[in-house]
Amino acid sequence: MRIGVLTSGGDCPGLNAVIRSVVHRAVVDHGDEVIGFHDGWKGLLEGDHRPLDLDDVAGILARGGTILGSSRVQPGHLVDGVERAKGHVADLGLDAIIPIGGEGTLKAANIFAEAGLPIVGVPKTIDNDIASTDVTFGFDTAVGVATEALDRLKTTAESHQRVLIVEVMGRHTGWIALHSGMAAGAHAIVVPERPFDIEELAARVGARFEAGKRFAIVVAAEGAKPREGSMEFDEGGRDMYGHERFAGIARQLSGELERRLGKEARPVILGHVQRGGTPTAYDRVLATRFGWHAVEAAHRGEFGMLTALRGTDIVMVPLAEAVKTLKTVPTERYAEAETVL
Amino acid sequence: MRIGVLTSGGDCPGLNAVIRSVVHRAVVDHGDEVIGFHDGWKGLLEGDHRPLDLDDVAGILARGGTILGSSRVQPGHLVDGVERAKGHVADLGLDAIIPIGGEGTLKAANIFAEAGLPIVGVPKTIDNDIASTDVTFGFDTAVGVATEALDRLKTTAESHQRVLIVEVMGRHTGWIALHSGMAAGAHAIVVPERPFDIEELAARVGARFEAGKRFAIVVAAEGAKPREGSMEFDEGGRDMYGHERFAGIARQLSGELERRLGKEARPVILGHVQRGGTPTAYDRVLATRFGWHAVEAAHRGEFGMLTALRGTDIVMVPLAEAVKTLKTVPTERYAEAETVL
Amino acid sequence: MRIGVLTSGGDCPGLNAVIRSVVHRAVVDHGDEVIGFHDGWKGLLEGDHRPLDLDDVAGILARGGTILGSSRVQPGHLVDGVERAKGHVADLGLDAIIPIGGEGTLKAANIFAEAGLPIVGVPKTIDNDIASTDVTFGFDTAVGVATEALDRLKTTAESHQRVLIVEVMGRHTGWIALHSGMAAGAHAIVVPERPFDIEELAARVGARFEAGKRFAIVVAAEGAKPREGSMEFDEGGRDMYGHERFAGIARQLSGELERRLGKEARPVILGHVQRGGTPTAYDRVLATRFGWHAVEAAHRGEFGMLTALRGTDIVMVPLAEAVKTLKTVPTERYAEAETVL
Amino acid sequence: MRIGVLTSGGDCPGLNAVIRSVVHRAVVDHGDEVIGFHDGWKGLLEGDHRPLDLDDVAGILARGGTILGSSRVQPGHLVDGVERAKGHVADLGLDAIIPIGGEGTLKAANIFAEAGLPIVGVPKTIDNDIASTDVTFGFDTAVGVATEALDRLKTTAESHQRVLIVEVMGRHTGWIALHSGMAAGAHAIVVPERPFDIEELAARVGARFEAGKRFAIVVAAEGAKPREGSMEFDEGGRDMYGHERFAGIARQLSGELERRLGKEARPVILGHVQRGGTPTAYDRVLATRFGWHAVEAAHRGEFGMLTALRGTDIVMVPLAEAVKTLKTVPTERYAEAETVL
Repeated sequence: MRIGVLTSGGDCPGLNAVIRSVVHRAVVDHGDEVIGFHDGWKGLLEGDHRPLDLDDVAGILARGGTILGSSRVQPGHLVDGVERAKGHVADLGLDAIIPIGGEGTLKAANIFAEAGLPIVGVPKTIDNDIASTDVTFGFDTAVGVATEALDRLKTTAESHQRVLIVEVMGRHTGWIALHSGMAAGAHAIVVPERPFDIEELAARVGARFEAGKRFAIVVAAEGAKPREGSMEFDEGGRDMYGHERFAGIARQLSGELERRLGKEARPVILGHVQRGGTPTAYDRVLATRFGWHAVEAAHRGEFGMLTALRGTDIVMVPLAEAVKTLKTVPTERYAEAETVL
Repeated sequence: MRIGVLTSGGDCPGLNAVIRSVVHRAVVDHGDEVIGFHDGWKGLLEGDHRPLDLDDVAGILARGGTILGSSRVQPGHLVDGVERAKGHVADLGLDAIIPIGGEGTLKAANIFAEAGLPIVGVPKTIDNDIASTDVTFGFDTAVGVATEALDRLKTTAESHQRVLIVEVMGRHTGWIALHSGMAAGAHAIVVPERPFDIEELAARVGARFEAGKRFAIVVAAEGAKPREGSMEFDEGGRDMYGHERFAGIARQLSGELERRLGKEARPVILGHVQRGGTPTAYDRVLATRFGWHAVEAAHRGEFGMLTALRGTDIVMVPLAEAVKTLKTVPTERYAEAETVL
Repeated sequence: MRIGVLTSGGDCPGLNAVIRSVVHRAVVDHGDEVIGFHDGWKGLLEGDHRPLDLDDVAGILARGGTILGSSRVQPGHLVDGVERAKGHVADLGLDAIIPIGGEGTLKAANIFAEAGLPIVGVPKTIDNDIASTDVTFGFDTAVGVATEALDRLKTTAESHQRVLIVEVMGRHTGWIALHSGMAAGAHAIVVPERPFDIEELAARVGARFEAGKRFAIVVAAEGAKPREGSMEFDEGGRDMYGHERFAGIARQLSGELERRLGKEARPVILGHVQRGGTPTAYDRVLATRFGWHAVEAAHRGEFGMLTALRGTDIVMVPLAEAVKTLKTVPTERYAEAETVL
Repeated sequence: MRIGVLTSGGDCPGLNAVIRSVVHRAVVDHGDEVIGFHDGWKGLLEGDHRPLDLDDVAGILARGGTILGSSRVQPGHLVDGVERAKGHVADLGLDAIIPIGGEGTLKAANIFAEAGLPIVGVPKTIDNDIASTDVTFGFDTAVGVATEALDRLKTTAESHQRVLIVEVMGRHTGWIALHSGMAAGAHAIVVPERPFDIEELAARVGARFEAGKRFAIVVAAEGAKPREGSMEFDEGGRDMYGHERFAGIARQLSGELERRLGKEARPVILGHVQRGGTPTAYDRVLATRFGWHAVEAAHRGEFGMLTALRGTDIVMVPLAEAVKTLKTVPTERYAEAETVL
C-alpha cells in the first residue's frame, strides 16, 4: 500500500507522534510505503512531498511541531483544488491519504473524501472541540502548560495581593480554561459558551477579599465575552496581537475588575507557549494510537472516516458527522468547576 | 449532612484534590459538615478524626500525599471491625462515609457497605487496574514521571551504547509500563499479563543492534515475569528492596540480556518517585470531579457505589461489581505498543 | 538574640527559603528568637509582626512567594519612618533586622543602617542586577522559566514559519534575556544596555531566512529600546499592561519586523510567570546560604552589610557600596551570545 | 584553523551545547574548519572522525547525550597512543584539539599536551569535583533532577510515615548530595568526604520522630561510607548494579535505620536519570561559554590549558594544575546544610 500523510493548521503537540506511528505501523508491520506532503494541503495541491522511512521519524516522538511543516489553507480554496489533488494522488499511486488537522482541515478532508479520495482523517486540536472524539491530542499538553503557569502565578498574586486575569487559548470553546482553571484551583473561569456578567464576576471575586483572602485568579478563555450590555468595550477592545484573535479579554477584564474592586489587577496572556514543545505522555500515547488505527482503517478500506477516542477505545467515525458541530463545555461541567472555586 | 472522608493504601497523587473537592462541594454548596479520619480505616476503627473546613483544604490541590495520612489495613481485619466502625459512625452522626482507596480499600468498603454503612467509594491507584473506571487518578502522574525519566535515560543509553532495563511500578498489571513505554518509544515492554520468553526478548533487542542502532530501552513492569521455564532465577531473584515487592525483574533481565547480547546492560529502578509529588493537571481534574460526584451521590442516597470515569462522564458503579476483577492490559493494546517499537 | 526579618519588593522565588534558613540557623543553632514583619517595610513601620518558629517555616522551602507578604514602599517615604522604625525595634528588643529585597529595599536598608539600626541585608531580585554579588537568587528560576517557554516556542515558530519576539523581564538590565536567549539558542537578543538599530536587527533575522531557515526567535528584555532615531514609536508604544512598564517592546518589534521582512511575526510576553512559583534547586541553595550567613553576620555584629556570592563563597559586603550602581551586562558577555546565534 | 573536538567519559548534560558552541564560534566568527572524533579518545587514536558544520549542530543545544558518542578509555592506555594520536593530528592538519571530559579525560589530555599536542581542555562532570573551576556543567542538571525526585518522595514518605534513604550520584565527592539535600530540605546528608557514624545518624533521624514528625529523608552520596568500625557490612554490601559502583549504601542504611529506629525505612536509588536528558538553562549557558572560550584560547595559542569558571568569568587554567586534586565538599559547606536539617 502507498500512504500519504500531511499535517495542517495550527501547531499542536503530538503531530510528530502521529507521523511516526503511521510510518512504524505501515512500514514495519504492513510493508507499506509512506510519503509526507509538505506544509499541509499545500503540499498535496502542489505535489510537494518526500518519502518517509523509519530513519526519518527516529527521535521525533517527543518533539513538538511537525517535521512536515504546516499551513493554514482555507477549505473554500480546496474545493477548486480537488482535481489537482486527484491528479497528484493518481500520479503518486496513493492508496490512502491521512490528513492530520483540526476542524478546518477535517472539513476539507470531508470534501476530498466526498470527491472520492481515499481519506482517513486524524483529528488534532489543542482546543479539544472536535465533537466526535472524547479528547484530542495536544489538549492535555496545553492544559498542562497553562496549569503550570497558573501554579506559578498564584504565589505572585498572593505576595502582591492582586487579582490576576490569565488568558488561555480557546476562541470558540472553554475547554482549556475549564481544565486548567479546575486543575489550578482558579477562583473564577470565564468561557465563550457562557457570556459573563461583569457585575456577577466582580461580586464573586470581591467576595474572596471580603472573606479575608489576599488574592484571586481568574482564568479567561480568549474567546470569553461579556453578556450583551454587561460591559462597554473601549478602544483597547480590538485585536492587539495580530490577525487571528478578536480581542484582548484579559486586558479588558483587568481594567474592569481593578476599577470595581479597588484592587490591583493584572492581565497575563499565556499565548503560544500552550501549543508548542514536548507533548505530555498522555498526548504521545493518544497520538500514537490515532496513527496506528488510521493505518488499520486504510488497510480495511474504511475511508471518509476519522479516528476517535471513546472511553479507552479508538474507533472510526464518519468525517461528515465529525465536522457538523463543535464540542462545547456543557453546563454541568462548568458547575463542577464553579463549586470548588 | 455529616460526611466522613478517609484515604487508605499507598500514596497516590490526587488524594488531596479529592479531599478538597469533597469539602468544597459539601460545605460551600450543601452546607454540610465534613470530618476527616486519620490514617485510613484505622482512623474510622479508632474514632481518630478531625473536622475539615475550607481553611483546612486551602492550598492542597497541587500537593502530593494526603493531609489525612494513610495506612495499609487488611480487609480481613476490617470484618472484625464492622461493629466498631458502626459505633463510631453512630456516635458521630455520620450520614455518609467517603473512603478513597485502591482495590483492597474498596473491598473493605464493600464489606462495610453490605453491613449497612452509608459508603460512597472513590477509586484510587496509580496502577490503573480498577475494572469499573476508564482511568484512576494518580496513573497519569505516574506515567508522566516514568516517561520523563525514560526521556532522560535515552540519551544516556545512546551515548554509552547500552541496553537499559527500566523497572516501573505495576505488580499485577502493566498499565504504567505500557503507557510510559509507548510515550517514550521504548523498544520492548514486558508486563505481568504476558509472561515473556527471554529468547524472544533478546532477539527483539538484538535485532536493533544488528540494524545499526547503538542502544535499546526495555521497560519492565515490576511484576513482569518470564514464561514458565524460559529463564532460571538465581539467588538474586529474591526481593532486594524490602517487604513489598517479590523480585527484581530489571536486575534479572539486565544480567540475562548482557550475557546473551554481549552488550552492556544496566537496570534502573524508578521506585517511589512514581507515586509522590504534585499531580498532573489531568489527575487534579479527575480527582476533583470524583470528589464532587461522591458528595452528590451521598446527597442522592446512592450508597454502596463508587465514582467512575466512563468516556468523559462521571458515573456511579456498584462497589460489589467494581472489586470483582482487576483491569488488565488487553492484547490489542499491547499490539499497538509493539508496532512502534 | 532577637532577630526581625522582612521581605520587600516584587515576588522572587527563594524568599521563603531565606526566611526558613534564618529561622533554622537562629533558633536551632543559636537559640535565638525570630519575628517576621508583615508586608515588607510596612510591617516594620507599623509594628505589624508575628513570631516565627520552626513550625511556621515547615514545608516552605520549595514554595514560591513569601509567607510574610510584601509591599513596594518607596525609600523616600522610609526616611520619614526612621524614628518610627527605631521605636518598634527598641520596643521589640530586636538585636538584628534582616530585610530581604532588591535595589530599592537595599537603599532603604542602607538609610536605616546609617541611622544606627542593626541591619544585615539579603539581596533579592530576579533581574540579577545587584552589583556586589555574582548572582542573586530568583534569577536562575526566572531564566529557567523563560528558557522552557523558548524551547516550546521554537517548535511553533518552526511549524508556522514565523518570527517570534519573546519579551522577558528586565527593565534596566538584560541578564534574563541574555541567559535565556543563550540557553535556548535565540537568533537575536536585545537588551537595555545596548540600544538596537532596527535595520541591523532586521538584517540579522533576515539573513536566517535567506540562508534557508524557516523561523527565527528574538528575545527582548522588556527594557530594550531602539537606538535614538532608529525606529518611530506609534500610539501602541504606551504601556499596555498597567503602571509599571514603560512600553511593549515585543509588540513594537513584531510590527517592525513583519513589515521589513515580509514574514509573519508575533509577540509573546512571558510576564509574571517568570517571578512566581517553585524555585530551582540552584536558587534554593543560594537563598538558604544567604539566610544562614545573614544570621552569622548578625551574631558577629557585622551590621550595615549584605550577603553576597563571590565564586563559591558567601561574603559580607557594605550596603553602601552595594547600592551604588546596577550590574549591567558587559559587552563581552553579549559577544559570547551573539556568536552562537 | 582546523580544530578537532571529542567527548569522553560518562554522559553529562551540556556536552552537545559545548560542541555546538565550538562549531558556531569557530566556523561563523573565525572561518575555521571543525571535525569531530567519534567515541572519545578512541576516535582520535583510530582516526575515526567526521566534519562538523553548522547544520550538524542545529537543534542539539537542548539535547542530552553527545552527538559524537563517548567511551571510557583509561589514561594508562593513552600513553601508548601518543604517537598514534600525533600521527592522526599531523595527517589531518589539526591546529587544535578540544577534548571535553572529566578527571580521567583531563589527565589524558595533560599527557597529550605535555607530548606537544595543541590541547585546550573543557572540564565536564556532573559530580562537580574538578578543582580548578567553580562549577562544571552537568552538575546543575543532576542536582535539579535529584531535587525534583526528593520533592516527590517527601510526600510519599510523609503519607507512609517512613524513612527514605535516597542514593544520589557521587562516588568520591558529595556535591550532588549536598546541593540536592539542601535544596529539598533533607534531614540528613551523608557524603564520602565525611564518613558517618551510624549511631549518630540514627540518633539524628530518631530525634525527628521523637519531636513528633512522621517521616525523614536521608540523602546519601553513592560513595558515602560509615566511619571505620561504626557499621558491619553484610553480604549485601557488594555491588548490586554492575561493575562500576562499589556498594549499595542506600540499601545498607535502610536496613540499619529500620532496625535501630523501629520505623519502616526504604532505599531509593536515583541512578542514571541524573546524568541524561535536557540540560538546565544554567548548564547550557556554562557549556556554551566554555566552548566559546576554548576556541578563543586555541586562536591565542594557549595550549595545555582548560576552561574554568571563576565567579562570573571564564578563565584559562593549566591542565597540569587542574588534575592534581579533586574538589571535595569543605567542612563549612556541610555545616550550612546541617543547620537547616
